[in-house]
Amino acid sequence: MNKNSSNIMALAATTPNKRETVCIFGTGDFGRALGHKMIQSGYPVVFGSRSTQTSSMIPKDAEVLSHAEAAQKAAIIIIAIQRQHYDFLIPLAEILHGKVLVDVSNNLKINQYPESNAEYLAQLVPGAKVVKAFNTVSAWALQSGTVDASRQVFVCGDNMEAKQMVMDIVRALGLTPLDQGSLLAAQEIENYPLQLFPMWKFPILLSLGLAAFFFIYSLIRDVIYPYVYENKDFSFFIAISIPNRICPVVALILLALVYLPGVLAAIIQLYRGTKYCRFPDWLDKWMLCRKQLGLVALAFASLHVLYTLVIPIRSFVRWRISSRILSQALHNVTEPLNTTHAWLSDSYLALGILGFFLFVLLGITSLPSVSNNVNWREFRFVQSKLGYLTLILCTAHTLVYGGNRFLSPSSYRWYLPNAYMLSLIVPCIVLVVKFVLIFPCLDKPLSQIRQGWERNPQYSE
Amino acid sequence: MNKNSSNIMALAATTPNKRETVCIFGTGDFGRALGHKMIQSGYPVVFGSRSTQTSSMIPKDAEVLSHAEAAQKAAIIIIAIQRQHYDFLIPLAEILHGKVLVDVSNNLKINQYPESNAEYLAQLVPGAKVVKAFNTVSAWALQSGTVDASRQVFVCGDNMEAKQMVMDIVRALGLTPLDQGSLLAAQEIENYPLQLFPMWKFPILLSLGLAAFFFIYSLIRDVIYPYVYENKDFSFFIAISIPNRICPVVALILLALVYLPGVLAAIIQLYRGTKYCRFPDWLDKWMLCRKQLGLVALAFASLHVLYTLVIPIRSFVRWRISSRILSQALHNVTEPLNTTHAWLSDSYLALGILGFFLFVLLGITSLPSVSNNVNWREFRFVQSKLGYLTLILCTAHTLVYGGNRFLSPSSYRWYLPNAYMLSLIVPCIVLVVKFVLIFPCLDKPLSQIRQGWERNPQYSE
Amino acid sequence: MNKNSSNIMALAATTPNKRETVCIFGTGDFGRALGHKMIQSGYPVVFGSRSTQTSSMIPKDAEVLSHAEAAQKAAIIIIAIQRQHYDFLIPLAEILHGKVLVDVSNNLKINQYPESNAEYLAQLVPGAKVVKAFNTVSAWALQSGTVDASRQVFVCGDNMEAKQMVMDIVRALGLTPLDQGSLLAAQEIENYPLQLFPMWKFPILLSLGLAAFFFIYSLIRDVIYPYVYENKDFSFFIAISIPNRICPVVALILLALVYLPGVLAAIIQLYRGTKYCRFPDWLDKWMLCRKQLGLVALAFASLHVLYTLVIPIRSFVRWRISSRILSQALHNVTEPLNTTHAWLSDSYLALGILGFFLFVLLGITSLPSVSNNVNWREFRFVQSKLGYLTLILCTAHTLVYGGNRFLSPSSYRWYLPNAYMLSLIVPCIVLVVKFVLIFPCLDKPLSQIRQGWERNPQYSE
Repeated sequence: MNKNSSNIMALAATTPNKRETVCIFGTGDFGRALGHKMIQSGYPVVFGSRSTQTSSMIPKDAEVLSHAEAAQKAAIIIIAIQRQHYDFLIPLAEILHGKVLVDVSNNLKINQYPESNAEYLAQLVPGAKVVKAFNTVSAWALQSGTVDASRQVFVCGDNMEAKQMVMDIVRALGLTPLDQGSLLAAQEIENYPLQLFPMWKFPILLSLGLAAFFFIYSLIRDVIYPYVYENKDFSFFIAISIPNRICPVVALILLALVYLPGVLAAIIQLYRGTKYCRFPDWLDKWMLCRKQLGLVALAFASLHVLYTLVIPIRSFVRWRISSRILSQALHNVTEPLNTTHAWLSDSYLALGILGFFLFVLLGITSLPSVSNNVNWREFRFVQSKLGYLTLILCTAHTLVYGGNRFLSPSSYRWYLPNAYMLSLIVPCIVLVVKFVLIFPCLDKPLSQIRQGWERNPQYSE
Repeated sequence: MNKNSSNIMALAATTPNKRETVCIFGTGDFGRALGHKMIQSGYPVVFGSRSTQTSSMIPKDAEVLSHAEAAQKAAIIIIAIQRQHYDFLIPLAEILHGKVLVDVSNNLKINQYPESNAEYLAQLVPGAKVVKAFNTVSAWALQSGTVDASRQVFVCGDNMEAKQMVMDIVRALGLTPLDQGSLLAAQEIENYPLQLFPMWKFPILLSLGLAAFFFIYSLIRDVIYPYVYENKDFSFFIAISIPNRICPVVALILLALVYLPGVLAAIIQLYRGTKYCRFPDWLDKWMLCRKQLGLVALAFASLHVLYTLVIPIRSFVRWRISSRILSQALHNVTEPLNTTHAWLSDSYLALGILGFFLFVLLGITSLPSVSNNVNWREFRFVQSKLGYLTLILCTAHTLVYGGNRFLSPSSYRWYLPNAYMLSLIVPCIVLVVKFVLIFPCLDKPLSQIRQGWERNPQYSE
Repeated sequence: MNKNSSNIMALAATTPNKRETVCIFGTGDFGRALGHKMIQSGYPVVFGSRSTQTSSMIPKDAEVLSHAEAAQKAAIIIIAIQRQHYDFLIPLAEILHGKVLVDVSNNLKINQYPESNAEYLAQLVPGAKVVKAFNTVSAWALQSGTVDASRQVFVCGDNMEAKQMVMDIVRALGLTPLDQGSLLAAQEIENYPLQLFPMWKFPILLSLGLAAFFFIYSLIRDVIYPYVYENKDFSFFIAISIPNRICPVVALILLALVYLPGVLAAIIQLYRGTKYCRFPDWLDKWMLCRKQLGLVALAFASLHVLYTLVIPIRSFVRWRISSRILSQALHNVTEPLNTTHAWLSDSYLALGILGFFLFVLLGITSLPSVSNNVNWREFRFVQSKLGYLTLILCTAHTLVYGGNRFLSPSSYRWYLPNAYMLSLIVPCIVLVVKFVLIFPCLDKPLSQIRQGWERNPQYSE
């Protein structure tokens, strides 16, 4: 190590303004894009290729040589070739000895091979210092110069100096290197660009399912029922009234589903008397996507707020208010102020405002840059204490909204209760069970279990 | 250093997919939780314990040996033991020579001991490479696999390679290591998990105090006064009307308090003629929590916006409007458009909207990830220029809201002026003093002082 | 390297709680401020100065010596002197050999010198280890202890150990060091504090220009026209009605301008048959500020939402509604519900809500901490798919708002169409061209070109 590292430092130190030559194996799209970008950033680039003739698409200022010749010209060699062709490097092992090989490859599927491409490369050319980098960058983004996505380049490798050299190139290209540790991390880095919001799939599908169900439910109650029985055309309810019924209902159910797994976990632990047993798989997965569930719930709650705030601008609402006033004017009556009504209306609005406010606060603390700046104790405080307060406020908002209409038979149409009554089932269950769990007779053993105590120590054997 | 480091690199490089054995001293809750998690991540784990018999609660795949035997099996030893028992490591000093010792301990109080636990450990076992890590992670979170809080693990240590090895383990467990430098940082890292929003305490207490004062104030003016003199029951004002009076008042006062210390500091510097004197302690503390003060003010302002926007949906407001129209209809009068009224109403709304908009902008720039991406010049521009513009707009919003009612005696009830009039005192003082400070005769010496000039150079001696 | 590094490690390791002496060359404002702060953080500080007499303004606990004497007392020397005076260091070269020199200097203009100050320093004193740091920190912020701006200190240098030592000092002062790689990065670090939102200039100027144009346009149509022809004073429209006409128009045009360059780039690539040709300069610049354009558009859209939601609270609107109801009451007519009106009103509101919701979502994903947590595929999905959906929804919102008034001659005043009609031009062009580009006969060759295929390979030669 010693000899090489001093060698590298010497290379880097001599003339600070002149960049070191970089060699790129492979003249495919990504190799050429990377070459273009490096030449723009002042690096002399030499391509290593099987045939040195097809030079037409290659950047003008770059040399094209055979693999062996190209490799000798540079300390860093970027392997822009697919994994299945890595074999051709074996005969070059001697020339590549001590060089920094940068693996930029990606796979087509997650965990396609037993070991990562970079580790495979390190096994093929044991004398080289393999660094994984650049695989999260798109050729098109490099080419067009518009890297407005994440500028992060994950870098990993076993040799510190080699990694440092690659990270310097990354920075010179205007990207942000992120040291991910030793080459063991390559597998994860290679899987990364293949993902498409894996944690969001379940919450989004669930919320769409719920939304579809409540859409049809509300359509039947609020559009079809009046059309059939009163021959009134309320089809325009589809635009605002029905969405504004779906959104709060879905938001409240999802918010309750964020806290349900925690309650279930507590029950399981109390029953088993130990925390050293894994939860069932579905519960583990559920717990891991609670943040996403909560954010989807917040999205629906925000839509509910917007839909509610435009109510007074709606042409239908203005017509209804004016026709009500006109009918009073016609009959020369003036309704007195109904204080109970005023109380109910004001308090459900106030509860909703406070609940939404806390909900947004929870959402802000789940931003990566904010949650990284709070410690575990603070995070627990916000997510648990404030979270339950939000759930309580939102549930109370829905309960007061119902008000005295709750059990009146007129709110049932075709035996279907109002949608908001259905939405109260899950949150009420969560709150009741949580309330029971707070009692000392249950809270004390639970705390002990979570601190490592076990009822039947042999259980975990 | 040389011999050890090459040794370490050799260990790490041989077989990339096989993790190195990790030794854990201590079979307490945290030790076991960490052991579980490491075994899950593919590390062979060996526990070092006083008695090798109490193995029932220990993960199945882990060995339990005596301290000395366990230490010999691994290059990294995690000391999951409380500081007061560290003495037992002294006899093991020879075996621990050259090993990486990871201090994971926490204290019960901030700055409990003169030196940090990690530094104490380094003194006890001088031949070992001590690294501080994992103390910010909760055992419960490790165990349940649901680390949805901050995944950051602060790591510090004097030996670069040892630190690197620990950081690789941290990454392998799915956590994010953060290099905090040499072991000197251990004290701060140990204090970190004991904090609960230390910077937020004063702003939140202050705002709650102000809110309580104005709640009682408004209750007297708006609920008790009409009940006593007009026998009207406006108790439902508690839900929305009174909060919507408290929120803007508290928000405006807090916003002014954000800019007051800067003005005071300028006056003190002008008076003293130097910047090389420390400010009084209360001013220093006040200046350090300005960001938090501003964010609490923003929270109150947001609530004010929500409370204001629901006004037209309130049942009381609808009743008041309809009864006003009905009384006009009854008397067959149609009020013409009052252009002055329209001007006042529109312009206080517009000022409020612009003020709130800039306030939210200020809030967004104070998000850690945003403020880290602006330089000092840009930050000064946003926080100072835009900040004062926000304060001016919000003060103007309140002034115009008052309109011509300002000094009319009818707005005094029991000699109490409207709450918004009280809220104008602090912002007006700040704006007037700031305006005075802009005059060249004061601005010029102030700039000179801030660039290091001193009126009486001997002052600082 | 070897001898020095072990030397450095020895220095750092001996007594962990005692800080190493730091030498500061230069007793100017920044040098003194840094000295103050370091003494506060427990570092012994020694100043190197030409004359050792002017010690009055220097922190009390610091020694002042000649340059040569001071340099010998410390391993780290901070050069708090302007670049043009660096020459005096040449005679000291021998004493400075092996020392860590920290360049803290800034320039007055971007790229003022051909090489960065730090690289210049490294050339002058070749035996020293030059590290660039602290230049982004303000002396005033250091002095007053209120570093509430970015606490980030960019550090770069060729020697890893030297960099590490400086980063430890940075951390000890309560700041966050950011390793920017080798000394090559110094140029960029020195340019950084001179910038003032360089990427925002064009979007903000453009939006202000558009806003000014539409302000005058609306003033003529909505205030001057009725004043001239109907002698009505609608001057108060300036406060809310006209801004609420400008904001959506500017927002929609800017949003369309975010997607126009992408469409133009596709046309250029199709025409040229290759992606290996640089775009014209203006297109490149335009593409680089799309994010900023989008965020300015979002700001205008947010203002539009706020202006719209306060409509029912406006005194003018209340008057208009009540006078309409009163005139109905007077003539004893009750208008029936106009279902078409209800449909139009509800659906343009719903489209606007959904469009704004998606727009805010796009804005959140462009927060640095969020966009850093998504990969390229996810980013493309959000910005491209969701972005176009937002544009479609917002355009549809405007189209439906127009409704059947669209081509009625009464909406023209002085031959000027409504402002919203002008705003539809750009988005409609973008959407139509994008729609054409989706056809397989154009989409297929475009995809091939973006994957590296060229129609005339000799083109790029």
